[in-house]
Amino acid sequence: MKTNTETGSGDRVRLDRIDTDYSSAKRPSEDDIEAEKKKLSRKLEHLQEKLFAGRNRSVLFIFQGMDCSGKDGTINHVFSAVNPQGVQIHSFKAPTDEELGHDYLWRAHRYVPERGYIAAFNRSYYEDVLITRVHGTVDEDRVKKRFGQINDFEKMLAENGVEIVKIFLHISKKFQLEKLIARIENPHKNWKFDPSDLAERKHWDKYQECYEDVLSECASKKLPWHIVPADDRAMRDLSVLKIAVDTLEGMDLSFPPPVPELQDLLPELHKERDAEAVKGD
Amino acid sequence: MKTNTETGSGDRVRLDRIDTDYSSAKRPSEDDIEAEKKKLSRKLEHLQEKLFAGRNRSVLFIFQGMDCSGKDGTINHVFSAVNPQGVQIHSFKAPTDEELGHDYLWRAHRYVPERGYIAAFNRSYYEDVLITRVHGTVDEDRVKKRFGQINDFEKMLAENGVEIVKIFLHISKKFQLEKLIARIENPHKNWKFDPSDLAERKHWDKYQECYEDVLSECASKKLPWHIVPADDRAMRDLSVLKIAVDTLEGMDLSFPPPVPELQDLLPELHKERDAEAVKGD
Repeated sequence: MKTNTETGSGDRVRLDRIDTDYSSAKRPSEDDIEAEKKKLSRKLEHLQEKLFAGRNRSVLFIFQGMDCSGKDGTINHVFSAVNPQGVQIHSFKAPTDEELGHDYLWRAHRYVPERGYIAAFNRSYYEDVLITRVHGTVDEDRVKKRFGQINDFEKMLAENGVEIVKIFLHISKKFQLEKLIARIENPHKNWKFDPSDLAERKHWDKYQECYEDVLSECASKKLPWHIVPADDRAMRDLSVLKIAVDTLEGMDLSFPPPVPELQDLLPELHKERDAEAVKGD
Repeated sequence: MKTNTETGSGDRVRLDRIDTDYSSAKRPSEDDIEAEKKKLSRKLEHLQEKLFAGRNRSVLFIFQGMDCSGKDGTINHVFSAVNPQGVQIHSFKAPTDEELGHDYLWRAHRYVPERGYIAAFNRSYYEDVLITRVHGTVDEDRVKKRFGQINDFEKMLAENGVEIVKIFLHISKKFQLEKLIARIENPHKNWKFDPSDLAERKHWDKYQECYEDVLSECASKKLPWHIVPADDRAMRDLSVLKIAVDTLEGMDLSFPPPVPELQDLLPELHKERDAEAVKGD
């Protein structure tokens, strides 16, 4: 069994051959995980500052996963390190009437990050080849067309300076069950429980199959999916932080060069400072 | 001289009578400030979770201040404690053509936070009675009308569940000068330097006067401005954190009540768990 996996090699993804957890042999100690997360968070904070200063690239993180896979928690942990002014998070819910009046990529395009910014999508246009497909509200021909459209859309974004990072949070069916039970048993978590999650759970196998299609068909060497084992929260956050840092490091970001002409402005400002000093004497 | 001040009493605000810094007598030790900030950050994180869970109120922070007053830095520090999914930050720049085609409140209205969310405005519609007034692109009659319109707009939002927190970051003219010089002298900060800041600086007194009008005219007991001394970064962040925590605590937020009917779903889920356990044996 494999753990962290990158798709896009052309081979079909088989989710049942990829672990949702780490064997204890592969897992660092709790302290080591914490220390590593802290280090990566600081790196990410610094890289984001460069991204923002440079303003010629942007980064789009797409998070997908079954209900209870921890999309919210991951986004919260990974991006809390980053200057909140530099990151925009968008949760895709059931489309509004206005959104339904357009093609399915329209609403997502609007939230693609501006140069200099990071965006994170909590769910995305991938739902339009997942939940709709599981419930049969989109036919198979159209699904195939959409795979092509999504690949073209992402290619266009990539060619226009958007770095796309696709993350699938991989959990076991058992893990989901425990989370659902916990949300019911703990009265303070009742508000997090969505009864429709139980209905969706009945389609578990069909979802996994549709995900395997997405992870195989909408992936390439340049635009892979990262399959992240997510039964273990601390390791999940660490893995995603590492992917984020590696991605931004690979972008060769740098602060804009100094502007030597600005030095010409200094004499007047220094004069003003000196005048203040004399007044203050 | 006063330090932290709340306006809205009806008296005219005089900025030259309010300190931009703290005398050493009034300032806690660096360690105490750090410890207090940590404590308040944790409180704010927890309060935001309640706000999000309840989804019936929202909070809008408005940050105004002269160039170099530290609006960016304050927003970064104060809101990095909060779940990034629960806070939306919007910087108001020069209006676009589309925005100019509408009334000046139109673009701001769009970013008013949804129930359950916090928003922070980095500048706001107040610029439409500040920079425009300083440069004479809006006449005095219209400015007076706008004060009334802004008060009505904020009253409407407040009556519809938006808690508005208005923060003026108060710096000295000397402090601004030092910041401008630093941005030029340090080549790595050149990208942060905006030459138009020098032109605006020449209008310092007019800006202070226009701010005094805003802080006096657009303020009431219910919707005051908080004047926060901002020459001292650590104390500035601490003050704003305290205002944020006090505001959310005053909203009497609570988690939604438990949903007893959910318990009926448990037997089936427990059965599934038991079946899994038997399979696993």
